[in-house]
Amino acid sequence: MGKHYLLNLYGCSFVLLNDEQGLIDLLEHAATASGATVLQTISKSFNPHGVTVISLLSESHISIHTWPEHGKAAVDVYTCGDCDPKIGCDMIIEQLCSTSHTLSYIER
Amino acid sequence: MGKHYLLNLYGCSFVLLNDEQGLIDLLEHAATASGATVLQTISKSFNPHGVTVISLLSESHISIHTWPEHGKAAVDVYTCGDCDPKIGCDMIIEQLCSTSHTLSYIER
Repeated sequence: MGKHYLLNLYGCSFVLLNDEQGLIDLLEHAATASGATVLQTISKSFNPHGVTVISLLSESHISIHTWPEHGKAAVDVYTCGDCDPKIGCDMIIEQLCSTSHTLSYIER
Repeated sequence: MGKHYLLNLYGCSFVLLNDEQGLIDLLEHAATASGATVLQTISKSFNPHGVTVISLLSESHISIHTWPEHGKAAVDVYTCGDCDPKIGCDMIIEQLCSTSHTLSYIER
């Protein structure tokens, strides 16, 4: 059974959401903290702003898409096996200093 | 507003679900058919079986994780803008010849 968290963050700072390397580091740390293994990470910094980071995990994937101009980010943390992806979600919520968020959980 | 489809497929053939290049082609075609632009695709074929393919899109991402030994696949098609990701889902459902599926839709 896989555990898939869909996290939407609001009220984040433009700078944090537009920092490609910072978001790569954050997602990889969040994956590792969840008990997952990062196999490969890809990213794209969009013009004029916005970042996507996706890590392929041994246990599925973790991703973030950001809209710095709206202070918004959409995060997916999807793992199989004995991971606890909620730990990664909590880390991302804290590190991106959102003023509000929604978190949905789906078993699949 | 982003459109995120979570598709779970069951009863698929082992061969189709373990064909890394076939799944890369399928996901890229599904993304394009949905009106999205593929920027980069990464994949991993697991030992002894199972495949992950993830494409980073201009409009978010598309991914598949497969468990050929269970005939199961988990697909995400998440796009922003004017895309219609339902088109990509329908293509994947048809091409992987599943006997049953569940499809959830989230606006985010």
